[in-house]
Amino acid sequence: MTYRAPVEEYNFLFDHVVGLEALRGTDRFADATADVTRAILTEAGKMCEEVLAPLQRSGDLHPARLENGVVRTSPGFDKGFKAIAEGGWVGMAADPEYGGMGLPMALTAAVGEMMSAACLSLQLAPMLTQGQIEALEHHASDALKELYLPKMISGEWTGTMNLTEPQAGSDVGALTTKAEDNGDGTYAISGQKIYISWGDHDLGGNVCHLVLARLADAPAGVRGISLFLVPKLLPDADGNPGARNGVNVVSLEHKMGLHGSPTCVMQYDNATGWLVGEPQGGMAAMFTMMNNARLGVGGQGIGIADASYQHALAYAQDRKQGKTSAPALKDSIIGHADVRRMLTTMKADVFAARAIAVSNAVAIDMAKATGDKAWTARAALLTPITKAFGTDTGIAVADMGLQVHGGMGFVEDTGAAQFCRDVRVTAIYEGTNGIQAMDLVARKMMDGGEAAMALLDEVEKDVEAARATFPRLANDVWEATESMREATEWLVSQTDLQERFAGAVPYLHAFARVLGAHLHLKAAVADRGGAREKLARFYIQRMLPEHAALLAHAQAGAEDLYALTAEELAG
Amino acid sequence: MTYRAPVEEYNFLFDHVVGLEALRGTDRFADATADVTRAILTEAGKMCEEVLAPLQRSGDLHPARLENGVVRTSPGFDKGFKAIAEGGWVGMAADPEYGGMGLPMALTAAVGEMMSAACLSLQLAPMLTQGQIEALEHHASDALKELYLPKMISGEWTGTMNLTEPQAGSDVGALTTKAEDNGDGTYAISGQKIYISWGDHDLGGNVCHLVLARLADAPAGVRGISLFLVPKLLPDADGNPGARNGVNVVSLEHKMGLHGSPTCVMQYDNATGWLVGEPQGGMAAMFTMMNNARLGVGGQGIGIADASYQHALAYAQDRKQGKTSAPALKDSIIGHADVRRMLTTMKADVFAARAIAVSNAVAIDMAKATGDKAWTARAALLTPITKAFGTDTGIAVADMGLQVHGGMGFVEDTGAAQFCRDVRVTAIYEGTNGIQAMDLVARKMMDGGEAAMALLDEVEKDVEAARATFPRLANDVWEATESMREATEWLVSQTDLQERFAGAVPYLHAFARVLGAHLHLKAAVADRGGAREKLARFYIQRMLPEHAALLAHAQAGAEDLYALTAEELAG
Repeated sequence: MTYRAPVEEYNFLFDHVVGLEALRGTDRFADATADVTRAILTEAGKMCEEVLAPLQRSGDLHPARLENGVVRTSPGFDKGFKAIAEGGWVGMAADPEYGGMGLPMALTAAVGEMMSAACLSLQLAPMLTQGQIEALEHHASDALKELYLPKMISGEWTGTMNLTEPQAGSDVGALTTKAEDNGDGTYAISGQKIYISWGDHDLGGNVCHLVLARLADAPAGVRGISLFLVPKLLPDADGNPGARNGVNVVSLEHKMGLHGSPTCVMQYDNATGWLVGEPQGGMAAMFTMMNNARLGVGGQGIGIADASYQHALAYAQDRKQGKTSAPALKDSIIGHADVRRMLTTMKADVFAARAIAVSNAVAIDMAKATGDKAWTARAALLTPITKAFGTDTGIAVADMGLQVHGGMGFVEDTGAAQFCRDVRVTAIYEGTNGIQAMDLVARKMMDGGEAAMALLDEVEKDVEAARATFPRLANDVWEATESMREATEWLVSQTDLQERFAGAVPYLHAFARVLGAHLHLKAAVADRGGAREKLARFYIQRMLPEHAALLAHAQAGAEDLYALTAEELAG
Repeated sequence: MTYRAPVEEYNFLFDHVVGLEALRGTDRFADATADVTRAILTEAGKMCEEVLAPLQRSGDLHPARLENGVVRTSPGFDKGFKAIAEGGWVGMAADPEYGGMGLPMALTAAVGEMMSAACLSLQLAPMLTQGQIEALEHHASDALKELYLPKMISGEWTGTMNLTEPQAGSDVGALTTKAEDNGDGTYAISGQKIYISWGDHDLGGNVCHLVLARLADAPAGVRGISLFLVPKLLPDADGNPGARNGVNVVSLEHKMGLHGSPTCVMQYDNATGWLVGEPQGGMAAMFTMMNNARLGVGGQGIGIADASYQHALAYAQDRKQGKTSAPALKDSIIGHADVRRMLTTMKADVFAARAIAVSNAVAIDMAKATGDKAWTARAALLTPITKAFGTDTGIAVADMGLQVHGGMGFVEDTGAAQFCRDVRVTAIYEGTNGIQAMDLVARKMMDGGEAAMALLDEVEKDVEAARATFPRLANDVWEATESMREATEWLVSQTDLQERFAGAVPYLHAFARVLGAHLHLKAAVADRGGAREKLARFYIQRMLPEHAALLAHAQAGAEDLYALTAEELAG
């Protein structure tokens, strides 16, 4: 399995599609010049191609395992993680005060996608650590920051998120893990957490858990939740890993894929923890980490989509089977119309999902650099779209990649099936894609649709500008955007949230289709007559039309969803 | 994992949707009265629920394995296969002259779906045997029939299909396996075949291979291919299994799923074989088996879809998480709008795919019973749709079923992931779904679209009749049918097949959407005010609109598929 990092594609997106020049115009990110971003992408790409990509199969064939309470990682993962840490890739967006590079999220997202494509199960460890870094930066005390941030930024220590309990998955407010005040500035944490990715490992250093728990007499629900930092090894007076804390891995899950990532059941027994943020303010702190991770998980989907695409393309060029009347490559299956259809669909959606994710990252960066609330709202609006569309694209593209392989796709040796199995969880973790869609139509529309409409205004402005060059394409995108606007108006007019939730997922997908068309069109304008214009034509003519059926579904309301009783559903 | 066979659903389909009363009016199938079909479905359903369903996990957890050249099957598969054989389920459609029950394919398809749902990997063995029985009935000499058919019909011996070679998958004409005339009525077969499902096993009896091979001096391509029956054990003078033939299992594939089904690489070294059909007439004989198997594989997809749906529904009713304002079941996740959306979508597509498959089977039966070529053409038209839509539905529904489970879906213990892994191959084997779509738009349209138009005429006739009862639903289906008619006219007007192939898969999906709407509407008419009317509303209002985007894609032509060069695809 070979992998080529999409360095040129990111350079193009940065320069022509997602507006990195505006970011470079801010004081905060003035150093992220084209030369710098180019050099960083090249360097990261090299590591992904040469060091990480060879580990992809290792993680699948030799899953992480639990031995006498210690997690043993897959062969080669230690070297892979060392390369990530030593390259400074964990802390690339982190605060320079603690050793970070202070680079834009746009670059972090790009590098995260490449690392995911190269070795998804390993990339999850630094990705979660990055989320924890951001949460600590925003919410931890100075003492905690000084102790933990340098170690996490350098990749010496890793981080995890501990939300889920058996009875509290999507409904985080139902959690029962307890925190008792020890009276010395620390808390005693007790309870069980499940689905803890990279909850333990043998890569050295320390494992730092951010744990949601409930203080004595805390109110019920999410308002009563606090956040604690619970290290596996308690730092000694010098800040080095010392005595074992009361936290243990009970078992690892046997999963469909992502075997290289240990998914742990964690037991906390009076483990010593430190409060992060305010008492009962755990959800706010956790959301900092979750939002970071949601962008990251979207990138995971895109990374696997790209890796599957490259893999399927190579197979299609190589595999001789049948003859076609295609102008070239008559003997390889890439000459067949339906194989072309699959490959072009894959490529077009990788572009769309990636461009949306980078736009999202740029919005985060602009919010940080300018303090403008409109950018904050934009970032918040795009996050669930990036997460859900990125991961659904990962699943759909990996599935098509398998299909391109024919019978070989179902046989594990090719690696096509592993992409499908590995990427499947990305639509579930960090909030299922259904939860993302509910977030989009409820929380992200609490502004009455203002952020959504502002984005659609911007789309239409760009489309108007493209009309002279590509009248037909621009017209298609403009009409789709108008439909999106109407659907959004309908949505925000629904005061009963069930009406919105009933069509939330199709609405999110339609939004992604329209944004994808917008970004494809921008790329076509910048690459007139080139490959990107051709790809934009394919996307806008063949894939964008889906938005109409999705919007019909989105506005169908809740009534017919509940028309069938539970008995009738079972009948 | 529990499974409830859809006996009542099939009774309803038979009585109200697919026109089994016409079949019962023929001489040939006059005995298939409502009482008979009901009794048979009930009996088969009982076996599937009680004997086969408990084996589903066993096949996954304890894959078939090769030991000293012999395939050892998963624990319990011997008892499961015995129940299938002794129940007479292998030979239910077979000629009574050789011990078959002579029942309609409509019933065989129904029972096949149920057995697939209960244990897909085991069901593949009798399914392939049924295909071989049909091929022998139509093409073998009387001597071969007398020797082999009773043993296969009783389930004592099983059958396989040997088409694929490493360099000859979808392009069967490229195969190189040789057959030399031994001059005594037998042939010496030599070559290697891959992806041979159930190529060997330890369930007793004999394994009979139908092998495509090339006689000396045969012309190149598919016209030079002949078909041979090659038993693992050569029958002795009494017709009992005797000496080992020159055929061996070289290895088993390590697959993404369907672990209970041994997928063999077979080596033939001067193996003794008997010609089936005419020399160079192998493809015609093989197509008898393939068409049977394509209907069967469509049923496999539907079976797994139904099993996943039942499994996800049970989980959704049981799993408490969050609260909703839904009228009932507030605490279970089935109260959540998006979970309802997924479950209702799953149920609606199971109905559509199943009704299409049974219509297909009825057309086969009517052709057999009446000799009317219009029924033959109808069956031929529906076969690729049944296969591709049935299996794509299996994949999509199993995927949604996993998603309904949230994090538990990605963990193997629940079985939701197994459905996804197992069903994935059904879109590939017996002709990939891309091949099915090419078959639909090329071979099945060689009549200038006559069979397709006749079917659409029938749809519109039924829709007109439903207009008084359901004006809005009928109107939606009528308009979609008109669009389908226009797309079909465009398609048959394309003399360059590449233009058709470019949109073949979306065209097939659109056709399935429209046929699904037709059959849902018929069900609604028969069940006014009942669950089926509610389900039809959901399907027609939320899922049918997809046809428009699919037809836009179907008619977009080949040009933009080939616009991107291979270099640009890689760029």
